[in-house]
Amino acid sequence: MYPGEIHAKLRAFVSERDWDKFHSPENLAKSISIEAAELLELYQWGRPADLELVKDELADVLTYCHLLAMKLNFDPDEIMNSKLEKTSAKYPVKKSKGKSTKYDRLQD
Amino acid sequence: MYPGEIHAKLRAFVSERDWDKFHSPENLAKSISIEAAELLELYQWGRPADLELVKDELADVLTYCHLLAMKLNFDPDEIMNSKLEKTSAKYPVKKSKGKSTKYDRLQD
Amino acid sequence: MYPGEIHAKLRAFVSERDWDKFHSPENLAKSISIEAAELLELYQWGRPADLELVKDELADVLTYCHLLAMKLNFDPDEIMNSKLEKTSAKYPVKKSKGKSTKYDRLQD
Amino acid sequence: MYPGEIHAKLRAFVSERDWDKFHSPENLAKSISIEAAELLELYQWGRPADLELVKDELADVLTYCHLLAMKLNFDPDEIMNSKLEKTSAKYPVKKSKGKSTKYDRLQD
Repeated sequence: MYPGEIHAKLRAFVSERDWDKFHSPENLAKSISIEAAELLELYQWGRPADLELVKDELADVLTYCHLLAMKLNFDPDEIMNSKLEKTSAKYPVKKSKGKSTKYDRLQD
Repeated sequence: MYPGEIHAKLRAFVSERDWDKFHSPENLAKSISIEAAELLELYQWGRPADLELVKDELADVLTYCHLLAMKLNFDPDEIMNSKLEKTSAKYPVKKSKGKSTKYDRLQD
Repeated sequence: MYPGEIHAKLRAFVSERDWDKFHSPENLAKSISIEAAELLELYQWGRPADLELVKDELADVLTYCHLLAMKLNFDPDEIMNSKLEKTSAKYPVKKSKGKSTKYDRLQD
Repeated sequence: MYPGEIHAKLRAFVSERDWDKFHSPENLAKSISIEAAELLELYQWGRPADLELVKDELADVLTYCHLLAMKLNFDPDEIMNSKLEKTSAKYPVKKSKGKSTKYDRLQD
């Protein structure tokens, strides 16, 4: 897909159904949590996850994330990139290599 | 950013820190849920949400979604697109316009 | 504690702070999800969970559940009991013993 | 119900089905999050929530909380009570009355 194509499609989908009125930032944030839990459920009880279902549930989380980003005029790639820079600074390679320790407990 | 640039950066970030070993699909699914709740917390109690914090928390959810997609060889735009086609079929414009009814309760 | 004592304490805590106005069922449901994710975070990355932290986060989830139950005039033990009866019927011992299969996929 | 009766019933339910092997603390924490999201879904899109469904979903969250408490030998009422004492100290009535401000931002 060319850049921005999925946003154009999402916008048309929502607009045709007159659903923008349901999409307050708060409601979108709730939907992200709800869909994230449906994704997590596929990894419950150690069952091997069905990848077709994972694909659909992950797509749902991503879709609501994009709808929220569009609503707030955030560029998804850009906010991931600027958060990555912050996270890189909080987790210097030297201190965090191979460890899952939270940044506020990392030691020299 | 050119297409794929954020994936290259994420890959380098994880690889430099030797964190791939923590990133099982199940753990990434847990992280998506955890970060989604941190985003939701910004919309708790009707407080006006701080948009800089929203940007960071939404970026965290997106980042873990992309890490899971990369791990499973899914293209994020592509899976959103194919899910959108399914959802469009489940929610025909004529039946669902202006309504938040779930598809299994939509009426003719 | 004698039965009902914790509810009396919760009621006094909320009332003294004039917090009942924040406790719509919807807000309490959000809080339950948010606190559940904080509990889940203690089990992220395979780190051994700190049991004192687990105690506090589990208490937070339980507390919001009780606040919602009190708000809707549900008795927590009673609703667990009646749900347990439904679940027992959906998962007959003979079919479900030792399996994590979802009820709609259980086989004779 | 007499005190402890619901725990006896839960224990019998799990034991008859040989499900204890699935109930690691981590899996129970995941289930709490998953069920919390199902409860939240009932309050999505501003639809009036169906109270019979709320009862069942809230019961599911409570049930997994109790299973985790039982697994870790925590008394549910007792941990709510000791957390309530901590929270009361963090949110003095004088500073927090009528406000939803987080404790680390409360002002004199």
